[in-house]
Amino acid sequence: MPRRANNELRKLAMTPHFLTHPEGSVLVEWGDTKVICTASIDDRVPPWMSGKNRGWVTAEYDMLPRATTTRSQRDSQRGKPNGRTQEISRLIGRALRAVVDTSGFGERTITIDCDVIQADGGTRTASITGGYVALALAINHLVAEEQARPTTLKDHVAAVSLGLVDGQTYLDLDYALDSRAQVDMNIVMTGTGQLIEVQGTAEKSPFSRAEMNTLLDLAFSALPQLVALQKLAIAAPRGAVPTAITL
Amino acid sequence: MPRRANNELRKLAMTPHFLTHPEGSVLVEWGDTKVICTASIDDRVPPWMSGKNRGWVTAEYDMLPRATTTRSQRDSQRGKPNGRTQEISRLIGRALRAVVDTSGFGERTITIDCDVIQADGGTRTASITGGYVALALAINHLVAEEQARPTTLKDHVAAVSLGLVDGQTYLDLDYALDSRAQVDMNIVMTGTGQLIEVQGTAEKSPFSRAEMNTLLDLAFSALPQLVALQKLAIAAPRGAVPTAITL
Amino acid sequence: MPRRANNELRKLAMTPHFLTHPEGSVLVEWGDTKVICTASIDDRVPPWMSGKNRGWVTAEYDMLPRATTTRSQRDSQRGKPNGRTQEISRLIGRALRAVVDTSGFGERTITIDCDVIQADGGTRTASITGGYVALALAINHLVAEEQARPTTLKDHVAAVSLGLVDGQTYLDLDYALDSRAQVDMNIVMTGTGQLIEVQGTAEKSPFSRAEMNTLLDLAFSALPQLVALQKLAIAAPRGAVPTAITL
Amino acid sequence: MPRRANNELRKLAMTPHFLTHPEGSVLVEWGDTKVICTASIDDRVPPWMSGKNRGWVTAEYDMLPRATTTRSQRDSQRGKPNGRTQEISRLIGRALRAVVDTSGFGERTITIDCDVIQADGGTRTASITGGYVALALAINHLVAEEQARPTTLKDHVAAVSLGLVDGQTYLDLDYALDSRAQVDMNIVMTGTGQLIEVQGTAEKSPFSRAEMNTLLDLAFSALPQLVALQKLAIAAPRGAVPTAITL
Amino acid sequence: MPRRANNELRKLAMTPHFLTHPEGSVLVEWGDTKVICTASIDDRVPPWMSGKNRGWVTAEYDMLPRATTTRSQRDSQRGKPNGRTQEISRLIGRALRAVVDTSGFGERTITIDCDVIQADGGTRTASITGGYVALALAINHLVAEEQARPTTLKDHVAAVSLGLVDGQTYLDLDYALDSRAQVDMNIVMTGTGQLIEVQGTAEKSPFSRAEMNTLLDLAFSALPQLVALQKLAIAAPRGAVPTAITL
Amino acid sequence: MPRRANNELRKLAMTPHFLTHPEGSVLVEWGDTKVICTASIDDRVPPWMSGKNRGWVTAEYDMLPRATTTRSQRDSQRGKPNGRTQEISRLIGRALRAVVDTSGFGERTITIDCDVIQADGGTRTASITGGYVALALAINHLVAEEQARPTTLKDHVAAVSLGLVDGQTYLDLDYALDSRAQVDMNIVMTGTGQLIEVQGTAEKSPFSRAEMNTLLDLAFSALPQLVALQKLAIAAPRGAVPTAITL
Repeated sequence: MPRRANNELRKLAMTPHFLTHPEGSVLVEWGDTKVICTASIDDRVPPWMSGKNRGWVTAEYDMLPRATTTRSQRDSQRGKPNGRTQEISRLIGRALRAVVDTSGFGERTITIDCDVIQADGGTRTASITGGYVALALAINHLVAEEQARPTTLKDHVAAVSLGLVDGQTYLDLDYALDSRAQVDMNIVMTGTGQLIEVQGTAEKSPFSRAEMNTLLDLAFSALPQLVALQKLAIAAPRGAVPTAITL
Repeated sequence: MPRRANNELRKLAMTPHFLTHPEGSVLVEWGDTKVICTASIDDRVPPWMSGKNRGWVTAEYDMLPRATTTRSQRDSQRGKPNGRTQEISRLIGRALRAVVDTSGFGERTITIDCDVIQADGGTRTASITGGYVALALAINHLVAEEQARPTTLKDHVAAVSLGLVDGQTYLDLDYALDSRAQVDMNIVMTGTGQLIEVQGTAEKSPFSRAEMNTLLDLAFSALPQLVALQKLAIAAPRGAVPTAITL
Repeated sequence: MPRRANNELRKLAMTPHFLTHPEGSVLVEWGDTKVICTASIDDRVPPWMSGKNRGWVTAEYDMLPRATTTRSQRDSQRGKPNGRTQEISRLIGRALRAVVDTSGFGERTITIDCDVIQADGGTRTASITGGYVALALAINHLVAEEQARPTTLKDHVAAVSLGLVDGQTYLDLDYALDSRAQVDMNIVMTGTGQLIEVQGTAEKSPFSRAEMNTLLDLAFSALPQLVALQKLAIAAPRGAVPTAITL
Repeated sequence: MPRRANNELRKLAMTPHFLTHPEGSVLVEWGDTKVICTASIDDRVPPWMSGKNRGWVTAEYDMLPRATTTRSQRDSQRGKPNGRTQEISRLIGRALRAVVDTSGFGERTITIDCDVIQADGGTRTASITGGYVALALAINHLVAEEQARPTTLKDHVAAVSLGLVDGQTYLDLDYALDSRAQVDMNIVMTGTGQLIEVQGTAEKSPFSRAEMNTLLDLAFSALPQLVALQKLAIAAPRGAVPTAITL
Repeated sequence: MPRRANNELRKLAMTPHFLTHPEGSVLVEWGDTKVICTASIDDRVPPWMSGKNRGWVTAEYDMLPRATTTRSQRDSQRGKPNGRTQEISRLIGRALRAVVDTSGFGERTITIDCDVIQADGGTRTASITGGYVALALAINHLVAEEQARPTTLKDHVAAVSLGLVDGQTYLDLDYALDSRAQVDMNIVMTGTGQLIEVQGTAEKSPFSRAEMNTLLDLAFSALPQLVALQKLAIAAPRGAVPTAITL
Repeated sequence: MPRRANNELRKLAMTPHFLTHPEGSVLVEWGDTKVICTASIDDRVPPWMSGKNRGWVTAEYDMLPRATTTRSQRDSQRGKPNGRTQEISRLIGRALRAVVDTSGFGERTITIDCDVIQADGGTRTASITGGYVALALAINHLVAEEQARPTTLKDHVAAVSLGLVDGQTYLDLDYALDSRAQVDMNIVMTGTGQLIEVQGTAEKSPFSRAEMNTLLDLAFSALPQLVALQKLAIAAPRGAVPTAITL
């Protein structure tokens, strides 16, 4: 099998309505990375938001202990939350809030849980891209019950990882590439091609603005596919058995 | 569709080798309850066991926040471990250790992680029954590498829940039955029909020894099916794509 | 001194009204195991029970650091609660609630604290048997103040440990027996001979249903003595100095 | 019954060898305050003391939840240690170390646990006075086993509380006095009449040096009784049943 | 440069209005010890004080990790609060409350934060002496806004450390003296020469009442200077740039 | 006073050798933001790095409770670390490690502590820019003692914040601008004009690549000033009294 090209996404599948209980849920399989994203609606907002007639969207990201090649300890055993985990949770929540009209669904909190069951690179971008689908399903559920305005979601949100490895630019890093990357970048975009979040980090050596621009070009080249798959996943009817959707 | 009989198990499927990284893994789908069980081998034992030339088997049980009908808070957010979660973790570890010859696989720790991704009753018995499969796969992996004796696992371990609901005895309670049960029982058995753990609790009103005996009869009636499915799951080759096995 | 027979209880004494402040209290001395059980009444219920015009009974179990042969660390020093301690706390609360009519004493919480000051086996069964006495004293206190109905307590609750050691069945294991036991069982019974909780665990090797039945027979043989002593302890007047009661 | 005089100690009793397991133990009953003090020997020192051929003495103080008139929450439930509890633990350890030759008993840690089972004022001074007895019993145990030099303990340590209430000076405050006190003082003394620790606190209004001197006089007036009872308690043989000793 | 005399204070400077945001703030530089003291007003009291029409004053003390010669770990990394830190926080709060009429400023909490940025002995006494200035500035702020009565502060509070080193008495110990001290004392005084808190500790060997009296004399000899500097600091106008004040 | 231009830095001063104890320290005053940065050398590395003959650089960021306009709770009181604080700590450590040759200073850990004593926007960029100075002073200290190679630091690291406010681009946001910003960006650069970290976040609405490029241009325009001031601060001799340096 020929290796995928540097500007090619890995195989990507979404299984909407993957779980029975949540108002929105999807299993994202992106290469060998697998993330369960759920959206849960609570008819309250945090105390500091109370009385403003606005809703709130927040996110929590975590990994099963053996999602990775070696087992990692649970936070509940370590006795304190993991810094990396909290940082990614904050990123996901911020990214999704950027396209939500919080005046559109009453004083409710929608919590997006992204739990990685298998990790092979790109877990945070898979979580954002899938978290958007779970969020959209939950908001559609509220719209169907006339509890939210149809304009609550203003745009799509999708994310992809990129990197500079051995002097070459790559789209969508798996773990093998990521662990060798000189530069690691995550780009969060709207469906209409605007930026929501840019995070570029020199893991091993600094990078130039020219390299950064090439990576941004790569990110935008993948956007149409991500948004197209999100649309299919959101539109798919809830069947008797959850079914994976690919482009 | 006719309702299943009081002495009938729910539909049960196991997908062995469900994940790529762990030495043993299985997805258990028991009715609408879904649990991912993994076995992870670490080439160390806890400090208090060191130097005895024996291994250790331990287990950790947890639920995704939205495995249940309403979302529950993560332990890492609550700031302290959940009592119920710890109690079930201890039960699973104890049950599996009962059939392991700890002198058979060197100074290693095998950790069984049971993560409930969807809950509809019987999550602890599904975790034990599936945890056994993950453990067996990991030990077979060690045996294949000549790191463990083939006699390390002395027997099977399987578990099932039972209950007294509206004066009737039931095998294998789903959530709807469990929440109305007067008595809730979990029985852990060896493949050869011995008892490993009996836990019977009067949730609403006390019960008689006669009722207890009827529940035990029901538990043993289900044992052959559970063991047969475990054997198929353990024997199944690792294919390109994980595949569910049913009886 | 001849050793006690396999079906004989250790020497058992109760000192009711052992402490000044609690609404109910008793020191249980069961062989060399000593547990202080207190019942504290709070005129509130947990938030999730509020407004139902029902009360709540809960329990907390702990050990002094040097109750055991070697000193163990306090939970407050370890930084997280102990799994075993939480599990026993949950068991005690569940066992006592099984005989309480929670509609009988208003929106109050009764907390049963069982603190082991010396451990020699059977601490959880001593805690349940003594916790019942503390609870009864507290409810009698409420009844005397016309704050609870006399029918609030529906029955007695008593518990005893049993085990299979060197192929023989034993009633009421002390630490020396317990640490060698193949099977460890705790039975919680009502005064009228029904079961509230059955917990049997194969610590070393599995057991048969016949062995389990013999252990249950032993448990019920001890029930009359336990209930008789509870009745004496509950009926004893509060004297100037706390006094131990034995059968 | 006539009230005790302002310069009179409450009734004080010590039950040495109160518990079976610890190397030293005593129940202190001081008025209605009851404290179990134990001394536990561990054949290690904290890492920062290792290799100096010296031992270490430390203390931990805590209260049972219902030692007080209203129940207080356990630290393990609060999720963080209590400031008052830690402060008293530090005081007890510091006071006892002041009379210990740490070169006298090898690289060992002796932990003094003081657990208040009933509180009626003066719990910290009872803990120091009783903690000294537990410590002496443990050191005598080491001396008897030729593991410590007989000169390890250089002197006695005893403590008493004092206060200024309604303009009058009082020795040995019970809770009723303590809660009304304008000034609260704790004095820790050696058997030979030197000071180890002076802690005087204006709870309601400042105090003069003259008042302070009167309180110190009162403290030293009680010292002979405290030391005499300690001597009796330390010298008492370990009998079949623990027995209370009074002056 | 000649060494300072045993009864001489180190160089002491206060920079009032050191920070922009707090209602009161001062940088205390006492020898090489530097502490930032701030007072923050919150228009609420703790729940247990609510409805009494009284205010509350509390304090928190901490050190930057590298305030000391070797770096110490942050509490947030250790996972539990430091006993010493909590003890000093409680001392500062108690000392300041002793001169506050809590009925004078409504249901407000004033929190005094004392953060040591450089430690060279006497951090707790510098915190009390500076904390008083921050408190006075905050109360003056409330008085200016007609939210507090001018009589809210009843007196000054100042503190100084003392010690017995190599048989000699010393006023105001720096770290070099403190680490060799046989006895360590902290005295908290009112401006009118009364005692608020006396804490004397035998770090190495017991001390006599005569020695204690000499140390108290030394403490009171320093009081006028401390109060004079506090008055200058409180009276200084808020300039464009914070300016240090010395006597 | 005319407002500064959109592309103008706020007034910036550095006081090197601000504290006595640390191997490197600097007070950064950037507008009204004040951060104390220290570097502490420990002659050990974390266990996972041991034996590789490499050093480690890590960072911890925190704020004094009243650095902000309203007081915030300490982490040690909240009982768990703050997600924002951990995220910034990770960023600072990662940024500084990008220019360090970890093979150059043996198996040592250098911890950079950045404690914000007054916050007015840009605390993380001030921490990186000042943290570099503290790190350089500590490494120079090691070089002077022949414990590190002079080539250990490969380049400068400096950072600046930027934003899009009311449709205009701004360099160096203070709190007033930051709180109204539509887009918030932080750029970490090497002295030679390469990128180490790019973090751009749409706080209120998405942004275009053109806007992002303008912000990057602004960031690089400020780099020469930042590096020039760092050089002056690092070269300044340690005087009797710490002195602020400006350009």
